[in-house]
Amino acid sequence: MKIYLDNGSTTQVDKEVAKVMNVFLAEKYGNASSLHQFGREAKEALERAREIIARKINALPEEIIFTSSGSESNNTILKGLAFQKGKGHIITTKVEHPCILGTCNYLSKKGFDITYLDVDRYGFADLEQLEKSIRKDTILVSVIHANNEIGTINELEAIGKICRKYNVLFHSDCVQSFTKVTIDVKKMNLSFASFSAHKIHAQKGIGALYIKKGIKIEKLVHGGHQENNFRAGTENIPGIVGFGKAVEMAKEEYIPKITKLRDKLIKGLLKIPNTQLNGHAKKRLCNNVSISFNFIEGEGLLMHLDAKGIAVSTGSACSSQSLEPSHVLMAIGLKHEIAHGTIRFTLSRYTTDKEIDYTIKTVKEVVKNLRKISPIKEGFVYNKEEYAHSH
Amino acid sequence: MKIYLDNGSTTQVDKEVAKVMNVFLAEKYGNASSLHQFGREAKEALERAREIIARKINALPEEIIFTSSGSESNNTILKGLAFQKGKGHIITTKVEHPCILGTCNYLSKKGFDITYLDVDRYGFADLEQLEKSIRKDTILVSVIHANNEIGTINELEAIGKICRKYNVLFHSDCVQSFTKVTIDVKKMNLSFASFSAHKIHAQKGIGALYIKKGIKIEKLVHGGHQENNFRAGTENIPGIVGFGKAVEMAKEEYIPKITKLRDKLIKGLLKIPNTQLNGHAKKRLCNNVSISFNFIEGEGLLMHLDAKGIAVSTGSACSSQSLEPSHVLMAIGLKHEIAHGTIRFTLSRYTTDKEIDYTIKTVKEVVKNLRKISPIKEGFVYNKEEYAHSH
Repeated sequence: MKIYLDNGSTTQVDKEVAKVMNVFLAEKYGNASSLHQFGREAKEALERAREIIARKINALPEEIIFTSSGSESNNTILKGLAFQKGKGHIITTKVEHPCILGTCNYLSKKGFDITYLDVDRYGFADLEQLEKSIRKDTILVSVIHANNEIGTINELEAIGKICRKYNVLFHSDCVQSFTKVTIDVKKMNLSFASFSAHKIHAQKGIGALYIKKGIKIEKLVHGGHQENNFRAGTENIPGIVGFGKAVEMAKEEYIPKITKLRDKLIKGLLKIPNTQLNGHAKKRLCNNVSISFNFIEGEGLLMHLDAKGIAVSTGSACSSQSLEPSHVLMAIGLKHEIAHGTIRFTLSRYTTDKEIDYTIKTVKEVVKNLRKISPIKEGFVYNKEEYAHSH
Repeated sequence: MKIYLDNGSTTQVDKEVAKVMNVFLAEKYGNASSLHQFGREAKEALERAREIIARKINALPEEIIFTSSGSESNNTILKGLAFQKGKGHIITTKVEHPCILGTCNYLSKKGFDITYLDVDRYGFADLEQLEKSIRKDTILVSVIHANNEIGTINELEAIGKICRKYNVLFHSDCVQSFTKVTIDVKKMNLSFASFSAHKIHAQKGIGALYIKKGIKIEKLVHGGHQENNFRAGTENIPGIVGFGKAVEMAKEEYIPKITKLRDKLIKGLLKIPNTQLNGHAKKRLCNNVSISFNFIEGEGLLMHLDAKGIAVSTGSACSSQSLEPSHVLMAIGLKHEIAHGTIRFTLSRYTTDKEIDYTIKTVKEVVKNLRKISPIKEGFVYNKEEYAHSH
């Protein structure tokens, strides 16, 4: 049995998505900038995909820019706006994806001032602190929509209201939430938003950006005038067409189905003694289950589950090679040893009830065995009671 | 009949390449940073592709970085090195791809000093001028290997020698030359080189970079530690695996076959009165034919050929939407009206003898008809004799 529960890291490309991609790999292989028929059909396909994504988030097609990844999208906004402005203050949170934090760290070395908002124990950004942090020279507020590790969904509409009140530009990293949580860039007062294809059953190496009409930013990649002159480079037509198809296929009716399996998995795993759910029980991604298993190492658990055919993650894939405890789990107040015993299970629309049953059963066995040989003593219970009431 | 002679803009993905890509789209879809089996098989495939590309240019695997395009590769090197150094002088040429010129223009606004080398009438960079231009604060020499519009192949070994003599870092945009001209980064004394997959029958949206071991540059995309910590973002495994496969399939034996068809096309087209070949007759890309047809507009010719099923280009695809005459054709000394009458035919290993016959015949007819209605008078012959002796 092969059970893939690491859809927060990346997803299987849907067969229908692969099918349309193949048409643009081998048959309609023109460069969208070319004037001949091959070029024109590539251009048409590119614009169709752009419309699909625009419609999904209530934006205009010309407000959508294709990039090569969520990371590139986030870098493009933060650096592009910062360099356009020349100086200023940026507000973000302590639980952003490494590409936001890495870019903020880079910008801080370049003389920009960064405020990292605290989050509560569920991972929600502190909105009072946000309001207090806004200054005259604040050029951007960037808050992740749904957290990639613990699945907590921030209230973008509330944050958007604050940004509107103080007339500050607002960006959100929507890589994990896209197609799983409704995004309306107008209602949310978003100036920018970042998306990625490979989290929604399309190809790796494709991202998108929403840039509100009229806002100018510096280019990250200079050269040709592609993508409304926001990004140079020949457009990845097969990947982009696949992204559009994947958005069309990500129907809302999948959400309750995935949510039901998520809750079954949470319930089953919390029956294991000395476990806790990270993030909020309800306001979380439909496919995210983050559980801390006391007294064991997450990486050991991951390897044992892998041997039994279950693919999970200890946190974000980007930092999976690192020995540092997750900055997200630290920010919500977990102790090092609890953070290290945390596993992220992320479901998809392909996940079956049978797979969830097998996973619960297998995790129970493996945790039991690992705890037998664990050097960390029992009786070490980390505020389990405190977390229990949130479930 | 559909004849694709715009392989300098982009190429058809080879069926074998698409086949291996599909395995990594739908089956082996792991994130190369993940620790489980799906992740490990993605990582292995990534490293295999890296080895193939390294071997092709006589580099070490750890010297190869995957990017999303040739444009990103070129931006990464120029900006990454410039920002790492903080200030300094860069030497490039007047006939670079727009992504090099655009980046240099950007860097010049940031306070860097740029020297644009002249080229001779064939498009070769002026090496005497290069040597004279090198200063104590020169941080980089960047010279295109094979020109994307006129196919002229610069002598990288000679340029590398000059750079070695003055101990200056040396970059080359090898997007058009890769697999068509032998590249040996050691013999050529290259510090950096840029490559693209979609010019060699692999997917759009994949590029690569050679960065000589030990050289530090600033990241263009911050975030995770992927690609030896040179570039953040989930690696596009299907695209990268396809790139590796395409490099393996680009056998040297195709070169004489394509060259023969190229020369047949040149010979056939030059029989049309008032035409001239741009670039050097011999030291040119095996697949490039750049011809100026006096008294007509290139775009009109392109459209008429398109109607007859032949896809060609007026210059680089990136600037095909622009009304400005090609900077490359200006740099080699063409008059505006001659530059505007220029067509680039770029062949591939799929090009057949029959297609070349049909193209010669069709171009002859179309040029004849267009000249009948052309407002530009005959007798306007632009140094045709001067060019003739180079063929």
